[in-house]
Amino acid sequence: MPRIPERKIISLILKECGKQAQERPDFHGSGDDCAVLTVGQEGQSGNIAVTTDTMVEGVHFSMDYFSAWHVGRKLAAVNLSDIAAQGASPKWAFLNLGLPDKWRRQPQDFLQPFTRGLCSRLGAFGAVLAGGDTVSCPDRIVLTLTLIGKLPKGRWLSRSGASPGDIICCSGYLGESAAGLLILSSGSKFNRRHLRLNRIVRRRLENRHLDPIPRVALGRLLVSGGFASAAMDMSDGLATDLAHLCNMSKTGALIYEDRIPVSRALKTLCRSLKRPLRPLDLATGGGEDYELLWTVPPHKQRELESEITRIKGVRPFVLGTVTEKTGVWLSGKNGSREISYQGYEH
Amino acid sequence: MPRIPERKIISLILKECGKQAQERPDFHGSGDDCAVLTVGQEGQSGNIAVTTDTMVEGVHFSMDYFSAWHVGRKLAAVNLSDIAAQGASPKWAFLNLGLPDKWRRQPQDFLQPFTRGLCSRLGAFGAVLAGGDTVSCPDRIVLTLTLIGKLPKGRWLSRSGASPGDIICCSGYLGESAAGLLILSSGSKFNRRHLRLNRIVRRRLENRHLDPIPRVALGRLLVSGGFASAAMDMSDGLATDLAHLCNMSKTGALIYEDRIPVSRALKTLCRSLKRPLRPLDLATGGGEDYELLWTVPPHKQRELESEITRIKGVRPFVLGTVTEKTGVWLSGKNGSREISYQGYEH
Repeated sequence: MPRIPERKIISLILKECGKQAQERPDFHGSGDDCAVLTVGQEGQSGNIAVTTDTMVEGVHFSMDYFSAWHVGRKLAAVNLSDIAAQGASPKWAFLNLGLPDKWRRQPQDFLQPFTRGLCSRLGAFGAVLAGGDTVSCPDRIVLTLTLIGKLPKGRWLSRSGASPGDIICCSGYLGESAAGLLILSSGSKFNRRHLRLNRIVRRRLENRHLDPIPRVALGRLLVSGGFASAAMDMSDGLATDLAHLCNMSKTGALIYEDRIPVSRALKTLCRSLKRPLRPLDLATGGGEDYELLWTVPPHKQRELESEITRIKGVRPFVLGTVTEKTGVWLSGKNGSREISYQGYEH
Repeated sequence: MPRIPERKIISLILKECGKQAQERPDFHGSGDDCAVLTVGQEGQSGNIAVTTDTMVEGVHFSMDYFSAWHVGRKLAAVNLSDIAAQGASPKWAFLNLGLPDKWRRQPQDFLQPFTRGLCSRLGAFGAVLAGGDTVSCPDRIVLTLTLIGKLPKGRWLSRSGASPGDIICCSGYLGESAAGLLILSSGSKFNRRHLRLNRIVRRRLENRHLDPIPRVALGRLLVSGGFASAAMDMSDGLATDLAHLCNMSKTGALIYEDRIPVSRALKTLCRSLKRPLRPLDLATGGGEDYELLWTVPPHKQRELESEITRIKGVRPFVLGTVTEKTGVWLSGKNGSREISYQGYEH
């Protein structure tokens, strides 16, 4: 008997208790990257965004190619990215650390580098570790981080506001994290076989998987300038993420093959593979890029483009437009085809 | 080489990044059951309490004697108890669900009863599920719940305010959860050997372990009336919990053997065991009672006693007094002996 897929589990849980949250006036943003909550006393309220992500050894990362420092960095980054997608400022983090005995013997083996990695990434974006729980987890490392961010009162990004005609953008090259995973998980064998792959190229792609950069400043700009009609972060690949956004906005999307941002590094890797892979397939189907994906009304695009140049490291690309026709459609030389949810599963 | 104990892990983590949180003006209550945070816009702030607990199958519970429904109830209760210990009102919960494939095949096997149990306990205390993450966890069930509660502005309970002369109280009988675990984990063998153990007594003790009642209303009363100089919830046993409270308050405690609340059910169980156990040892060393432990200045004790009668299910007991001399001392017929940290480890 097949196991129940992720989204069915979520809908099962929601069926049992989800309604209650949505009925409450202090709860907003179900289906987004974070829950948005109204806090504080009556008439003196503010908003916070809360997100939580779990990473399981052997499922989300492997200690064969992740250092403990990188595990900490990535755990922080995936949560920071959700906070960014809501337009919030990260503030407080809570860590649940489940460690097998073998990692609990010498602090320098895991605990110290992991904590340093975690706190360096959190600290760079203004967040601090404020609590947590440590437990024994016999078979494998299981890590949960919960992150709380502050929002400007009554204003945040959501997935559900895109309108037909809006321009679809993302904040950087796509598919590089999936390419990095391909290199890392192939182990030394791969590296020997592919000595032709330039070391700088390899490092770049590996780093995009090991140490993604959450787009926190960009999220804040999108909400403070009122630029984005909808936004989310890209964890499951463009085809799946954009399908989610369209679904929540009750719209569709038309994007163009020649506009999908494919880097030279990704092309180089794809050429060097024995069994060739199309860069475009990694860019639309590969996950964990942790770039932001957003839609912007056409009359605001110009102002946004000029503001965005101030943000370091972000290179925005226009992918296509929001449509009334539902589904995510990719247009290329041979016409257009639907690619909704053709994403990446861990 | 021995593994690093829990509290050393925490101090290691704090060494790497703890200071940052304590240096921030919007962070309070380190070392308490929850982190207390100041949220909202400047001059319009409120306070929230945040706690998070992880339960690992085979470490914190066993599916041999826990139903999925009870797992959900208990996960909610242990977090609600932390919120109670801070004097907060539970509002929003976030669930991280790590499930092996075998529990993901039929929703009725785990997911449905678990979610029902979780939400029934949360709902009874005014909290709702507001988000989370579901992941595959190959070997065992790993569950994290993060719970956010609201606080009256600028007021919450903490472990660090006890003064010499304050009266030490707890909210119910102690050691019953440990007794329940003893029965449950001995399996059917035990039950056959101990048919003499009254079914009502057995059920009562088992339920205290499977389905503890968080003392949320009591926590709110203690903070709203300004009664408690210090408070915490009892998860590791009186000897350890009280030692923590005294340590944080830079005081000691003198408690009396004949005042430790030992129920008739606990005495009955202890008599029925082949290898006898003293009820007092379970009451001071057994964990997971999830009663509240608090200290109250003598001049407020009378008013508190009258207010507390309004709260259903709570039966307060006076255990002793806070002292200048550090350590937790238990006074009995043969003089007094130190019992600090003689607690319970999972």
